[in-house]
Amino acid sequence: MSSVEKPNDPLQETCLQARRVFDGILLKVDRDRVRLPDGREVLREYIRHPGAVAVIAQHADGRIIFERQFRHPLRRAFLELPAGKIDPGEEPLAAARRELREETGFKAADWRRLGVMHPCIGYSDEHIEIFLARGLHETGQQWDEGEFLELLAFTPGEAVTAIRDGRITDGKTITALFLALPFLS
Amino acid sequence: MSSVEKPNDPLQETCLQARRVFDGILLKVDRDRVRLPDGREVLREYIRHPGAVAVIAQHADGRIIFERQFRHPLRRAFLELPAGKIDPGEEPLAAARRELREETGFKAADWRRLGVMHPCIGYSDEHIEIFLARGLHETGQQWDEGEFLELLAFTPGEAVTAIRDGRITDGKTITALFLALPFLS
Repeated sequence: MSSVEKPNDPLQETCLQARRVFDGILLKVDRDRVRLPDGREVLREYIRHPGAVAVIAQHADGRIIFERQFRHPLRRAFLELPAGKIDPGEEPLAAARRELREETGFKAADWRRLGVMHPCIGYSDEHIEIFLARGLHETGQQWDEGEFLELLAFTPGEAVTAIRDGRITDGKTITALFLALPFLS
Repeated sequence: MSSVEKPNDPLQETCLQARRVFDGILLKVDRDRVRLPDGREVLREYIRHPGAVAVIAQHADGRIIFERQFRHPLRRAFLELPAGKIDPGEEPLAAARRELREETGFKAADWRRLGVMHPCIGYSDEHIEIFLARGLHETGQQWDEGEFLELLAFTPGEAVTAIRDGRITDGKTITALFLALPFLS
């Protein structure tokens, strides 16, 4: 990681004071007083998030499970991978197993961690752990109350085409496919 | 877009009432009352965002301009592409030209829009328009007050390696590279 983080980093900012300024039903916002590299002080506002997982679940025939889900912030449905928040105290892999089972009705025998992505570094501390799941067998969905979604399956080639033609625009889904491509063929 | 949005979509949710519940220095949060497909009503909280741009700026020798920037929400520096918010009334291409000039000190003669991505569909309405900029010539940075960053340049191959080995984890940057790859070689 030498090209990202440096000892005595000249870009380093120092948090002087943290304050919760919004404690909503879903969202928590902190406003921190921060010292910049030049000594000046500024305020930074951002979402505190528990972290999430996203799963590339691949059938034996090569197809990947996708969901079509309505997303209220943008007032339309999106094509995306199974994903969800990590519960308090839950290991990321356990969250991935749970979300895959609940949302798609599949368990997987083979799991591989592909990496982590950060969806929104400007105003959220969310990180998303990305997993590849294979050896699928069906057990039946257990959707959360108020969760509505359709399940689809795309070959890796179809998924790449859907990114290139703008049908898939969700950042976590595109990042997960990028990381998974070397393992999918 | 037929596989994403459908007429009489069975996933459609209806917004019954919108309310601003947090009006911060940087972040605006709305809490909307929404009717689900089964008729039940729920509350949805999310960030209202003006939209943003991200730029793949490629030198004549093939290298792409990257920034190393400290991101307070995650308390560390990130490798990312030049990017920034769209100002009120500003066209996305104008925002891309402005951000590239301000952050890197380069103007570009050739611009191509590569698409749009959504960084955080669960709790933000942000969209990021992605541009490829070539024919670069230097004019000098004009950093915003409180903006500190380092400029770097990676070949497309180095950028892909940095994604695969975890040095680049920023969602907008990975998505933009995915969309640009067919044009970069």
